[in-house]
Amino acid sequence: MAGRSSRSSDGGKLESGFFEPRSLAVIGASSHPGKVGYAVLENILYSGYGGGVYPVNPKGRKIQGLPSYPDIAGIPKVPDLAVIIVPAAGVPETVTECAAKGIRYGVVISAGFREAGIEGRRLEKDTVQRGRKGGVRLLGPNCLGFINSSLPLNASFARLMPPKGSIGVISQSGAICTSLLDWARDQSFGFSKLVSLGNGADLSESDFLDYLSGDDETNVIIMYVEGVSDGGRFFRSLKRATRHKPVVILKAGITQAGAQAVSSHTGALAGSDKAYEAACEQATALRADSVEELVELARSLTSQRIPKGPRVAIVTNAGGPGIIASDACEKAGLTLAGLSQRSLARLSAELPPASSLHNPVDVLGDATAERYTVAVETLLSDRGVDALIVILTPQAMTEVDRTAEEIVKISAGSHKTLICSFMGAESVEKAVSVVESAGIPNVEFPDRAVQVLARMYERSLQKEMPPSKLVRFEVDKERVKQLFEVYRKAGQIQVGPEDCRTVLGAYGIKNTPFLVATDYDQARDFAKKSGYPVALKIVSPQILHKTDVGGVVLGIKDESSLEEAYEEIMSRVRRHMPSAEIEGVGIQKMVPEGRELILGMTEDPQFGPLIMVGLGGIYVEAFQDVAFRLAPVSPADASRMLCELKAFRLLEGVRGEEPADVAAVEEVLQRVSQLAVDQPELSEMDINPLMVYNSGGGYTCVDVRMTIGG
Amino acid sequence: MAGRSSRSSDGGKLESGFFEPRSLAVIGASSHPGKVGYAVLENILYSGYGGGVYPVNPKGRKIQGLPSYPDIAGIPKVPDLAVIIVPAAGVPETVTECAAKGIRYGVVISAGFREAGIEGRRLEKDTVQRGRKGGVRLLGPNCLGFINSSLPLNASFARLMPPKGSIGVISQSGAICTSLLDWARDQSFGFSKLVSLGNGADLSESDFLDYLSGDDETNVIIMYVEGVSDGGRFFRSLKRATRHKPVVILKAGITQAGAQAVSSHTGALAGSDKAYEAACEQATALRADSVEELVELARSLTSQRIPKGPRVAIVTNAGGPGIIASDACEKAGLTLAGLSQRSLARLSAELPPASSLHNPVDVLGDATAERYTVAVETLLSDRGVDALIVILTPQAMTEVDRTAEEIVKISAGSHKTLICSFMGAESVEKAVSVVESAGIPNVEFPDRAVQVLARMYERSLQKEMPPSKLVRFEVDKERVKQLFEVYRKAGQIQVGPEDCRTVLGAYGIKNTPFLVATDYDQARDFAKKSGYPVALKIVSPQILHKTDVGGVVLGIKDESSLEEAYEEIMSRVRRHMPSAEIEGVGIQKMVPEGRELILGMTEDPQFGPLIMVGLGGIYVEAFQDVAFRLAPVSPADASRMLCELKAFRLLEGVRGEEPADVAAVEEVLQRVSQLAVDQPELSEMDINPLMVYNSGGGYTCVDVRMTIGG
Repeated sequence: MAGRSSRSSDGGKLESGFFEPRSLAVIGASSHPGKVGYAVLENILYSGYGGGVYPVNPKGRKIQGLPSYPDIAGIPKVPDLAVIIVPAAGVPETVTECAAKGIRYGVVISAGFREAGIEGRRLEKDTVQRGRKGGVRLLGPNCLGFINSSLPLNASFARLMPPKGSIGVISQSGAICTSLLDWARDQSFGFSKLVSLGNGADLSESDFLDYLSGDDETNVIIMYVEGVSDGGRFFRSLKRATRHKPVVILKAGITQAGAQAVSSHTGALAGSDKAYEAACEQATALRADSVEELVELARSLTSQRIPKGPRVAIVTNAGGPGIIASDACEKAGLTLAGLSQRSLARLSAELPPASSLHNPVDVLGDATAERYTVAVETLLSDRGVDALIVILTPQAMTEVDRTAEEIVKISAGSHKTLICSFMGAESVEKAVSVVESAGIPNVEFPDRAVQVLARMYERSLQKEMPPSKLVRFEVDKERVKQLFEVYRKAGQIQVGPEDCRTVLGAYGIKNTPFLVATDYDQARDFAKKSGYPVALKIVSPQILHKTDVGGVVLGIKDESSLEEAYEEIMSRVRRHMPSAEIEGVGIQKMVPEGRELILGMTEDPQFGPLIMVGLGGIYVEAFQDVAFRLAPVSPADASRMLCELKAFRLLEGVRGEEPADVAAVEEVLQRVSQLAVDQPELSEMDINPLMVYNSGGGYTCVDVRMTIGG
Repeated sequence: MAGRSSRSSDGGKLESGFFEPRSLAVIGASSHPGKVGYAVLENILYSGYGGGVYPVNPKGRKIQGLPSYPDIAGIPKVPDLAVIIVPAAGVPETVTECAAKGIRYGVVISAGFREAGIEGRRLEKDTVQRGRKGGVRLLGPNCLGFINSSLPLNASFARLMPPKGSIGVISQSGAICTSLLDWARDQSFGFSKLVSLGNGADLSESDFLDYLSGDDETNVIIMYVEGVSDGGRFFRSLKRATRHKPVVILKAGITQAGAQAVSSHTGALAGSDKAYEAACEQATALRADSVEELVELARSLTSQRIPKGPRVAIVTNAGGPGIIASDACEKAGLTLAGLSQRSLARLSAELPPASSLHNPVDVLGDATAERYTVAVETLLSDRGVDALIVILTPQAMTEVDRTAEEIVKISAGSHKTLICSFMGAESVEKAVSVVESAGIPNVEFPDRAVQVLARMYERSLQKEMPPSKLVRFEVDKERVKQLFEVYRKAGQIQVGPEDCRTVLGAYGIKNTPFLVATDYDQARDFAKKSGYPVALKIVSPQILHKTDVGGVVLGIKDESSLEEAYEEIMSRVRRHMPSAEIEGVGIQKMVPEGRELILGMTEDPQFGPLIMVGLGGIYVEAFQDVAFRLAPVSPADASRMLCELKAFRLLEGVRGEEPADVAAVEEVLQRVSQLAVDQPELSEMDINPLMVYNSGGGYTCVDVRMTIGG
C-alpha cells in the first residue's frame, strides 16, 4: 500500500488523450476468436470508434481486416493510447516501447501481476516504473479496460456495449462492470464512461474521479471500491467531485470476513470502515449499502431531478402497496404530502367516490389509464408535493401499457421527482420498458422505491449545507513537537501522564493535573497545591485492573487520610502482586460529577487522523454510541458529530436537566483535530472520561492516554 | 374491531368443502367479457376444475356454454360453495338463499361494503349475521377470491393461474396476490392455496392459518397482514402453525403514516407494531421487512432445505461480488465456512493456480462450467459447509447456461441449502430459469442472497428452541381483584401508591414501601418503622416536576432532619405554587444504588397484555433499549427479553463489575406477566426504577404506577 500511495498522485492530470484518443494501438491483437486480443479489437471496431486503429502482432499482416504491424515502432503514426493484451512477462518491455514511440496512455488488460504472487508483483512494479520514466500513464493491469460511450469507444473485453447515458462508472471489480452493463441494457439506463481499475497500479480511482467530475457527459458518478490507494487524495477528489455532481459509492470489504477476502483477492489493504464512512459523510458522497442500491440510485439520479423537499405523494391502484409505501416514507424520514384544496377538489370531481383522495391516493383496483392520468397530473402540479411514486398492480381491469404511456406524457412537463413501482413480472414488462425508456425509473417494490427517493433527498440536503470554514486556534505547536521528539529519540511510544497533560495544555484543552508520585511527600505536596479531595491510583505496567488489587482510593479528604491511603495502597499491592514493578502512585484532584464522554483520535492507515466522540463510562461498550470524522474537523463537522450520537439527547438535557456545555465539547473536538493534524507523530489518543458540565460550565479531561510513532 | 373479534372465532373449523368443493355455484355469473362475473366463471372453467359448476343469473339460460339457473333454489344439486359476484345491496339476501339451499361456504367477491362507508358497513354486518344464522361461512367481501392449484380451482378474478407449488398465501391485499402470481410465473415458484381475505368480515387470517398449517400440499405459509381481527386467536394459530411449517409475515401499517393509510383503506385497526413483533417472535414466525423479502423467503423456503448451521461457502468467478457476499455473511451473523483439508486438496488439484481456494472460492473470471462443477461438488460435500451460494457474473469466457445445467445436476444429490446469485439481466436470463425451474432460487444480488440464507437459518434456530413451560406462582389473586373492584366502583383509574405496593406484594414482587403522609407525625412514624435514611416528595396532582418547586428532599438521616425537611418542602411548595392541591408528602426509605431497569405492562388492543423491560434512568429515552413480549411470559421468554437488550452487557457486568441478579429480574417479568393475565382490569403499569442488585442480591421496585379500566 505504501508503494501505491506514494506513486498514485504523481504524473499530472488525466487528459483527453486517454478517453478520446485520436488513434490507438492494440498490442497483442489477435485473429483468433475466443482470445482476449480478438475480443478487444472486435469491441473497438464494433463500438463505432472513428479514430485510427493499429493492431500490433509479430505474426500476420492483417488482423480483422486491418493492416497489422509487427512492432510498436512500425506504426506509421503516434497513437494517443495503447491497449495492451500481451502476456504479463512482456508488458514491461511493451511499455518501454510505447514510451519510445511517444504514446502517453496505456490500458493493461493482461493479468498475471500483483494478484498472481511475488513474480507478478515484481512485474507490476517494473511496469509502473517504466511507465513513469517514459511518461506513459497506465490503467490496470488486470482490468477489463474502459468504455467511452459518447465517443464512442469500447476499449474493453466486456461483451456488451452499454447504452449511451450520463452515469460514469469507476470500479475496482471488472465483474461488477459486466453486470452493470447487463442491467443497463435491461433497464434502459446508460453510461458516459466506464472504467475497470484492475490492480490500479498507476492511474487510481482518484484520477478518474477528478476526470469525471469535470466531464460534461457525466451527471452521476458511481464507484465500487475495495481499498483506495491514497486516502487523503481520494478524500479531496471526492469533496471536489460532489460539488459538481452526486457520487454514489459501494464499498466492499467493510467487515472482518469481507476484509480477509479483499486481501486474498487483490492484495489491496481494506480501509477501516469508520474512516470511509467519515470520508463519505464529510465529502457528501452517497454511500450505497448494496449492489442493488448502487444500481437503483445511479439510474434514478441520472434521469430524475432530486426532490426539493421531503414531501412524497403516492398514487396506487391497491391499498396494500400504498400502505407499504407510506410505512417506508415514515421509516426513511420522508413525509406524506398533504394535498392542496385544489388538488382534493379535482380528485374528488374526477375520481369515483370510493377512491381514497388523501395521500396515498387510491384510484382503486379497476383504475383505467384515465384515472391514473387525473391523479398523476393533479399530484405533480400540487405545490405541496416534492416527489411522486406511482404504484401499479396488474389487476383484472388494469390498462397497464396505456397507463405507462400516459405517465410518460404527463411527466414530460414536470420538474418533480417521479418514480414508478409497477409490481409484477410479465404483466408489466412492456409498461416498465416504456417508462424506463423515458427516464422514469421503475422500482419493482414500493418500499424500495421510497428508499431510493430518500437517498435522492439526502443529496438535496447535502447540496444545501453551507461550506464550513476551519478554525485555527492559537496553540503551542513547537512545544509538543519538541516533547514528542524526546520520546522518539528515547524509543518510547507511550506518553507519560504528566506529558499528556502538557500536550493538552499546549493545545488549550482543559484537563485535570495528574502526578505520578514516587514517594508520599510528592503526593502530599501535589495535594496541597491542587486542593482536596484527591484520588490515588497505583501506576504499574503489570497492573491493568487497578481496583482488583486494591490499588485505587477515591475521595481522600485531607492530609492524614492521604498518608493512610498511600501506605494502604502500597502494602495491598505488594501483598497481591509482589512481583509488580511499581512506578509510583498517581494522584489527581477529584472532579465534580458531570456528563461523561469519551473523545479519541486514531490514525487510519489510508485516511490519516480520525477523530471520535461518544458517550463515555460503562455505556460506550454496551451501546457503541460513537461518531467519527476525519481531521481536520470543522465547526460544522463537530456539531454534526455530536448530533449523530443517540446520547445527544442526554447532552441537551432530559427530564428538566440543564443542557450540557455542547459548545465547549465542539471546541475540544476541533482542538484535538488540530493537534492530530499538526503532530503526525501522534498515532493514538483517548480522553476518557471527558467530564462535561452544564452549559457555560465547560469541561475537563480527567484521564488521557497518548501513543506516538507506532 | 370489537365486533370482528367477537365473531371471528365462532363457526368451527374450515373444512374441505371450502377449498375442495365437489360442486359450486357462481352467483352473478355473466356472459359479458369485461365483467367480473364473466372473468370469475371463465377462471373456474379454465383452471381445470373437475366438479359441477352452476352459474346463477336471472337472465339467460346458458352462460359460457353451461346451463344457467335463474335463482339458487333452482340449482339441481346442493353445491358445497357459492362464489358471489352480485352487487353489494343484493348480497345479504343471496347469503340467506344460499343458507336455505344448504350451501355451507361463500366467497363474496363483490365490493361496496365496509370500505365504502356507513351503508356498506351496515350491509357487511347484515351479510355476516345472515351467514352465521344460516350456517354459511364467508370469505370476503371485497376480495379477489381464492385459488387452490392442487385441485385445481381458480375461484378468483386474478388474471393468472399460478404454477402449482407448495406455498400457501393468505393476504389482506388482493393486489399483493396478483403481483405474487406474476412473480411466481416469472421465477418458477408456485402456490398450493392462495386466499385474498378482502375485508375479512367472517373467515379470518386465523381460520386460513389453521387450515393451511394442516394442509399437506403446503410447506410454507406467507401472509400479508394489515390488522388482525382477534390478536389472541391469531397468536395461538400462529404458534400452532409454526410447529409444522415456516410462516413468513409481512405486516404493513407499522408506522404512524402507514397506520393512517390502513384506517382510510380497510377500516381495520392497525395493531401496535411492538405487539406484532412480540407475537411473531414468541410464535417463531419469520417477519419479512419488505415485499421483496417476502417473495425471496417464500421461494427459498419452499424449495430448499433450511441450513443446519451458520457455515456458508461461496463460489464466485469474480472477487468483488465474493467480497460483497462475505461482508453480508458477517453482517447477518453467518460465518464463512472453513474448508476441510480434503476439499482444499481437491480444489488445489483441479483449479488453476491463480484461483483463491479459501472461502470464498474464486474460480476466476475465465471459469468454465467444469471449474464451477469442481468447486460446487467439493463444497457441497464438505462436512463443514451448511449452505452454498454460487455467484456468477457474465464475463467474456463464462459458460453461463452450461454452468447452470451442471449446478442443477450436482445439487440433485445434495441435502444442503443452495442459492444462486447470477448477476445480470439478459446474459443470465436463460440460466436463471434453468436453476429456478430446478428449485434453486436465484437472488440477483449476492448480499441479498446472504440475507435470505440468514433468515432461513433463523428458522433452523427457531426449530431447535425447546418448548418453554409457563411457571405459575403462588399469589393472592383475590385480594387484588377486590382492591381493583373498589377502584372500579369509585370510578377511579389511577391506583394510589400504597395500593400499587399492595398489588405487587400480593404477586410476590418485592418493593420499597411508600406512604403519602398527610402530616408530619405520620411521616415520622413511617420513618421509625422503615428506618433511615428516607426521602420525601410532595404529592400533588398539579405538580409534575417536583424538583423544580423544591418538592423533593433526599437522604434524610434522622428524625430532626426529617422534621426540618418536611416543613421546608411544605413552605417551598406553598410559596412556588400556592394554588396546588396538596395530597400529602410521600415518604420512602432510600434504597441502595443498583442497576436501574424499567419494567412495564400495557394492554394492546389486539393482542392483550404486553410486557416490557428496558434500561432505566435517563437512558431509556435516549436509547429506547427495550424489549417486549406478549403475556403470558415463559421463563425462556423472560430470559430472551433480557438478552435482547443492548444493556444486557451492563447486567452481565462490564469492567470487572459483578453480574446483576438476572435470575431475579426474569422472575419479576414472569410475575408481572401473571398479574397482567390474572387481572384484566389492569390496563397499564410502570415499575421505574426497578433497582437490581448484584447476583443473589435481588431487586426492589422503587416507584410504581398502575392504571385500571381505561
